[in-house]
Amino acid sequence: MNYQMLRYILGQIFKLEAALMALPLLFGLYYRDAGVMPILEVMLPVGIAGYLLTAVKPKNQTIYAREGFVIVALAWILLSVFGALPFVIEGAIPKFIDALFETVSGFTTTGSTALSEVESLPMSLLMWRSFTHWIGGMGVLVFALALLPNGSAQSMYIMRAEVPGPSVGKLVAKTQLTARILYGIYIFFTVLEAILLKLTGLRWFDCIANAFATAGTGGFAVINDGIGGYNSVWVEVIITVFMLIFSINFNLFYLLLIKQFSDVLRNVEIKVFFAIYTLATLMITFNIAPMYHSFSRAFRYAGFTVASLCSSTGFGTADYTLWPGFSQTILIILMFCGACAGSTGGGLKVARVMILCKSGVSEIRRQLNPRLVSTVKLEGQVVENEQIRTQGAFFILYIIILFVSTLLLSLDQYGFDVSFSAALTALNNMGPGLGAIGPTGNFGEFTTFSKLVIIFDMLVGRLEIFPILIALMPRTWKKA
Amino acid sequence: MNYQMLRYILGQIFKLEAALMALPLLFGLYYRDAGVMPILEVMLPVGIAGYLLTAVKPKNQTIYAREGFVIVALAWILLSVFGALPFVIEGAIPKFIDALFETVSGFTTTGSTALSEVESLPMSLLMWRSFTHWIGGMGVLVFALALLPNGSAQSMYIMRAEVPGPSVGKLVAKTQLTARILYGIYIFFTVLEAILLKLTGLRWFDCIANAFATAGTGGFAVINDGIGGYNSVWVEVIITVFMLIFSINFNLFYLLLIKQFSDVLRNVEIKVFFAIYTLATLMITFNIAPMYHSFSRAFRYAGFTVASLCSSTGFGTADYTLWPGFSQTILIILMFCGACAGSTGGGLKVARVMILCKSGVSEIRRQLNPRLVSTVKLEGQVVENEQIRTQGAFFILYIIILFVSTLLLSLDQYGFDVSFSAALTALNNMGPGLGAIGPTGNFGEFTTFSKLVIIFDMLVGRLEIFPILIALMPRTWKKA
Repeated sequence: MNYQMLRYILGQIFKLEAALMALPLLFGLYYRDAGVMPILEVMLPVGIAGYLLTAVKPKNQTIYAREGFVIVALAWILLSVFGALPFVIEGAIPKFIDALFETVSGFTTTGSTALSEVESLPMSLLMWRSFTHWIGGMGVLVFALALLPNGSAQSMYIMRAEVPGPSVGKLVAKTQLTARILYGIYIFFTVLEAILLKLTGLRWFDCIANAFATAGTGGFAVINDGIGGYNSVWVEVIITVFMLIFSINFNLFYLLLIKQFSDVLRNVEIKVFFAIYTLATLMITFNIAPMYHSFSRAFRYAGFTVASLCSSTGFGTADYTLWPGFSQTILIILMFCGACAGSTGGGLKVARVMILCKSGVSEIRRQLNPRLVSTVKLEGQVVENEQIRTQGAFFILYIIILFVSTLLLSLDQYGFDVSFSAALTALNNMGPGLGAIGPTGNFGEFTTFSKLVIIFDMLVGRLEIFPILIALMPRTWKKA
Repeated sequence: MNYQMLRYILGQIFKLEAALMALPLLFGLYYRDAGVMPILEVMLPVGIAGYLLTAVKPKNQTIYAREGFVIVALAWILLSVFGALPFVIEGAIPKFIDALFETVSGFTTTGSTALSEVESLPMSLLMWRSFTHWIGGMGVLVFALALLPNGSAQSMYIMRAEVPGPSVGKLVAKTQLTARILYGIYIFFTVLEAILLKLTGLRWFDCIANAFATAGTGGFAVINDGIGGYNSVWVEVIITVFMLIFSINFNLFYLLLIKQFSDVLRNVEIKVFFAIYTLATLMITFNIAPMYHSFSRAFRYAGFTVASLCSSTGFGTADYTLWPGFSQTILIILMFCGACAGSTGGGLKVARVMILCKSGVSEIRRQLNPRLVSTVKLEGQVVENEQIRTQGAFFILYIIILFVSTLLLSLDQYGFDVSFSAALTALNNMGPGLGAIGPTGNFGEFTTFSKLVIIFDMLVGRLEIFPILIALMPRTWKKA
């Protein structure tokens, strides 16, 4: 373990977090609200700590996969701890565990809340809460890579540990340029969404906060009634479209940018993603139409909710816990699937589900003919056996964590369906679950122990299992 | 596809089923009940059909994996269809779908029932219902292999398709002798259990029927109140012990028989199985003790229920749907795990769960060092990569079938928890589920479509996925 590089990169991340807090600070100054001092009280020490930690450059800048995983895991945990402090200092969220829950939920783009209402929060802190979605969506370390001048070849280890999906394709040879392109596309769509939302007549604050929450596929709302509270079809349509945009592999936008249209058209994952979206929307529309006595209203709710869960955003316009069992089961299956690899969305990712399904089907062929060299293809290319084994193992760990978490959560007061959906929604960075934690509920009534389990699951889900598990293994910390 | 061998072996199975119906017939003649004629009306045509189909021996007796899977799948479906007819003809179960549900549930050793009460059934049919558990437990084709003189080397393909678990170890070189040893052990323990139950004062009918249901890890009761209805600690203790015995890999009993004690002691799966049993029993005991105001009563219920679900029997003495969420979640996890490979129990099997968990953990190591040749060991031996891939794919198909079934079942009137537990309990050949289909409920209110889905799941679960899927693929049926 290269502790010097660990210190140095974490220091850079601290500086970055302090810098990012300038945004909510500006809102606080504009609205002259109670969040200004608490933000400053965190921003300054964190920034100074960052400067001290980065004062001496490490001599040995070599890092490996081990360091990459540990840096990412520690960065996310520490960012969340510091990010939670302004809420506690201001008093808006008196208990630290609740503030930490909220911040981890923000950074991991889960969007689950422990608060029963949000409108009493100072505007600055409300904006910070939504901004964490945006920071976490594309990844804070990817952001650092985009900014830092010394992007070494080894920074790929960090990027691989933070960017979601079964494989990270570098767009261009240099990691730093890849990170800059990704963030460029990310900022472009976020700004575009905010402007389009402004055209519907929302105040700028809501436009920006909702654009952040959509871009990161997070799902924190800034009014108590959620997106449905705006009572505007246009707001819902714009957010639906952008939830889908942010569910797409960002590599495709880059390919569009450099006019490689044929490569975009050949992409299978996006076709499967939109097929799932369309099919699920239609099935749910027909299923809930009798309930709303209106096909068009049913379509409006279904189209929004399916986009919200496919993208793992978790915005709500309708309380799906009142829908029939069939629709709820579709939504749960969507939670597993999630968005495309290389997007800001959560879940298992469509590409990974495709690899898993294909490896299952290829096994049926191999049962008939054990000597058959059965190949799994994705995007026209043969998926290597190593990759299949990795994805299989990933899925097994995912299911193990899901059920162990469900068991730990069931020590709380809730039944199997609530405990299971709480673990599922956290692990997939979704937001709402079933029953008491549905779109109109919140996680406030969970015990501290349960909240810690959910915080663990949110981090494990966002960082795709390995970084957190590896950081927890004692032998990771031994000197090589 | 060797259609001649398909015809010939199915013919043998028909003859066998007709012969096996002699047992309930004898009970019918003894009790002079209404089941005699209906049984005869099925027994004779099926037996005659069997003789006609086996009249001409196929010239080409070569079969491969393909034929093995198809023969097993078809045999199980046809056995169930014929086995259902006496119930319909007698009128005890008027609807064919309900009778088929009951018979598939019997043969697959699931033990789920669509009947709200069983005591009104003629004794002969009640015994036939319990006897199907015993026939299905060790496998009807294994039985045929034990009896038929022409046990060719290729009969291994049939055995592999029918015997549960990740791998089938032949005890001795000849398949036929292996099958005979397995059935010998099976009959010994069944008779022993029946005799021990008789010592508690039960009538012989109940002793035999309950021994059949325990041996097959089925779970059909012959009195409306289930095993709890006998109000006898000794009955519960004997059944608990035998549920555990029938959850153990039968190879171990053979090793005991030939005095290879050290091999038995080295077996890891059985240690893990009993560790799971002990831990789950203790956790549930402490969890439910306050509810029953008695530690000993809680221990009695927990010990029985955990054995019942670990072994996938599904006998009930207490209504666990009233237990706290923690206990229910433990029970659901036990349903996934199931019994040991090579036993009559269902579920994923402990050995398979061990391989899956170990391959997940080994992947964490490989993430840190991709060039590492990471090996998974079980019972001191290295598990081949092919085997790991097969088990991973099996698990993926299992989860896919679980969720597709849940989706189809959710078209029915029930919520997610009932639909999910119905699919889970069927796929694991367990018996009861949650909510309306708990230990005191039944599947009678499900629609015909839902019952068909559950029948499919029970067969898929018992035959471990591949035979049924392969039989359903059109290309399986093409001439080579």
